Amino acid sequence: MTSTGRADRTVTMREVAERAGVSVTTVSHVVNDKAGARIGAEARARVQQAVVDLGYRPNVLAKNLVQGTSAFIGLVADSIATTPFAGQIIRGAQEEAWRHGHVLLVANTEADEAAERDALAMMLEYKVRGILYSTWTHRATQLPPALAETDHVLVNCYAPGTATRAVVPDEVAGGRSATALLLAQGHRRIAFVNTTSPSPAREGRLQGYREAHAEAGVEVDEALVLDASPEQEGGYGAAERILALGATGVFCHNDRVAMGLYDALRERGLRVPRDMAVVGFDNQEVIAGHLRPPLSTVALPHYELGAAGVRVLLGEQRVEPGASLRVACPVIPRDSISAR
Amino acid sequence: MTSTGRADRTVTMREVAERAGVSVTTVSHVVNDKAGARIGAEARARVQQAVVDLGYRPNVLAKNLVQGTSAFIGLVADSIATTPFAGQIIRGAQEEAWRHGHVLLVANTEADEAAERDALAMMLEYKVRGILYSTWTHRATQLPPALAETDHVLVNCYAPGTATRAVVPDEVAGGRSATALLLAQGHRRIAFVNTTSPSPAREGRLQGYREAHAEAGVEVDEALVLDASPEQEGGYGAAERILALGATGVFCHNDRVAMGLYDALRERGLRVPRDMAVVGFDNQEVIAGHLRPPLSTVALPHYELGAAGVRVLLGEQRVEPGASLRVACPVIPRDSISAR
Repeated sequence: MTSTGRADRTVTMREVAERAGVSVTTVSHVVNDKAGARIGAEARARVQQAVVDLGYRPNVLAKNLVQGTSAFIGLVADSIATTPFAGQIIRGAQEEAWRHGHVLLVANTEADEAAERDALAMMLEYKVRGILYSTWTHRATQLPPALAETDHVLVNCYAPGTATRAVVPDEVAGGRSATALLLAQGHRRIAFVNTTSPSPAREGRLQGYREAHAEAGVEVDEALVLDASPEQEGGYGAAERILALGATGVFCHNDRVAMGLYDALRERGLRVPRDMAVVGFDNQEVIAGHLRPPLSTVALPHYELGAAGVRVLLGEQRVEPGASLRVACPVIPRDSISAR
Repeated sequence: MTSTGRADRTVTMREVAERAGVSVTTVSHVVNDKAGARIGAEARARVQQAVVDLGYRPNVLAKNLVQGTSAFIGLVADSIATTPFAGQIIRGAQEEAWRHGHVLLVANTEADEAAERDALAMMLEYKVRGILYSTWTHRATQLPPALAETDHVLVNCYAPGTATRAVVPDEVAGGRSATALLLAQGHRRIAFVNTTSPSPAREGRLQGYREAHAEAGVEVDEALVLDASPEQEGGYGAAERILALGATGVFCHNDRVAMGLYDALRERGLRVPRDMAVVGFDNQEVIAGHLRPPLSTVALPHYELGAAGVRVLLGEQRVEPGASLRVACPVIPRDSISAR
């Protein structure tokens, strides 16, 4: 060991050849899986045993160069930091890539244009198999021109008016599920605290709220649809309006809004779900399951978005040009909804 | 464009050579920055202009193969998912790697041994410059044998009894800072709700709590040091004991414990900071700044852990074999501490 922790030397292909009693060329053909090379089964076995005995590591860079492409899939992300739970997109993409013999190259750009240009250039220079271009909130996006130089799929975003394929959460079905949870418990005056930010989540979840009402044959009182900033402060501030409207249940745009609403209700001596049933959205790990009472919510399918992105890129799952694959948002029932 | 979104063709080195009026060898020498190649300034400029005009992408795989090493730095992480805010380790490592002309290869293993073995093998086959081996909670770890095949640095973990270098948060100084915040406001009976899990965070923050008291000349009442599960439920359940002990301030092992304590105090009609001053630890994005009132806390330096890991690996920052570089935990003052 040196002071840097590295073991002193690397096993060479020549040493593998000597141990196996074959030529270096034969070793190269075996470890690089060269098509068309005629190697006897016995010699192949001797090489494989020598590789194990000596701990030889093949050089994938050489293999990639010969093939003219690499086993890399690039993932360009605008931010790992601000929506922490969206890190599951990386996990889903990585595991699916590995299942197909590919390796994920991740670049986080913090939405900085120069960083994004550098990230794409790097990936193209490494001859990636293709690129997943993703954002940490579901939104419309413009495509950086360099993306056109390789196969690409958008994840959690889409490019209107282009032929680009996208994988996005099914916001409408998610909003329908959240509302249906409350309707099924007999609630008829259900407030919806939507976000103030224009987004597919805002439009889609509202549409889902309306569809669930229509399916249950309940008319929507438009006064029950409110806007608030999509965080704790927004939920806290909406409590007074919700109570004045005579709502018995609330569908919150996200779990953070629900957390703020919980605080406001508690300050008024009201209890969830006895005095107010509450449903969130997102299933944020550190919040939803740990509120008092634990929050019923609908999960964003980040892991599956990443995994499906890889499948579409590799042609394992078909999406038409310009179309979006909509991924289901699973319901996570907990204790914040009462029977009426 | 094809149906996969890829533009039809790739610009070749030959086309660059034709446009620049030079040989393919000259283009290769310019784009690969070949040392010792004598190329006139004018020819070099013509090649560079042709590269821009045609949108040519050099093949880094070829360059790496010639050099026998790659510009990759591997980052093996046990989990992106469970401690979401620790994703900043990736961001710090990536940005520092880019600053030094390196590219980060990230592998998330979910602490699965087979996945870890695969990740390390993949990185070694790609001839990485070195590997950062990291965990998402600060802890002692055992080294996988394959790490010895390349330079490596531990990030947010350490390997006792080995010569491995590590970069870890300074838990003792963090605990001292958190406690000092309360002491500076005149609090003298400060409860410490520590975690039940044995860890460097548990030992270190307790030591910091004691040191801050010693520095202020205040004796520690050992009855004020409690244990609770390190999440909302633990803080909620500790409230009764804290109140019975006559504490006026509480240092919580993390922000989630503080969040649960807030709930318990609110249910009793008590207010933060008027009736109880509270300090957290972690500075979890989605929680700390959004509690009512916003929580004063001490941040875990995840970004800096990742960045420092890269600097140590590349020899830009010196750490002795077997030693740990301790990174400061910055104080984030908000509104949960009152003047007494």
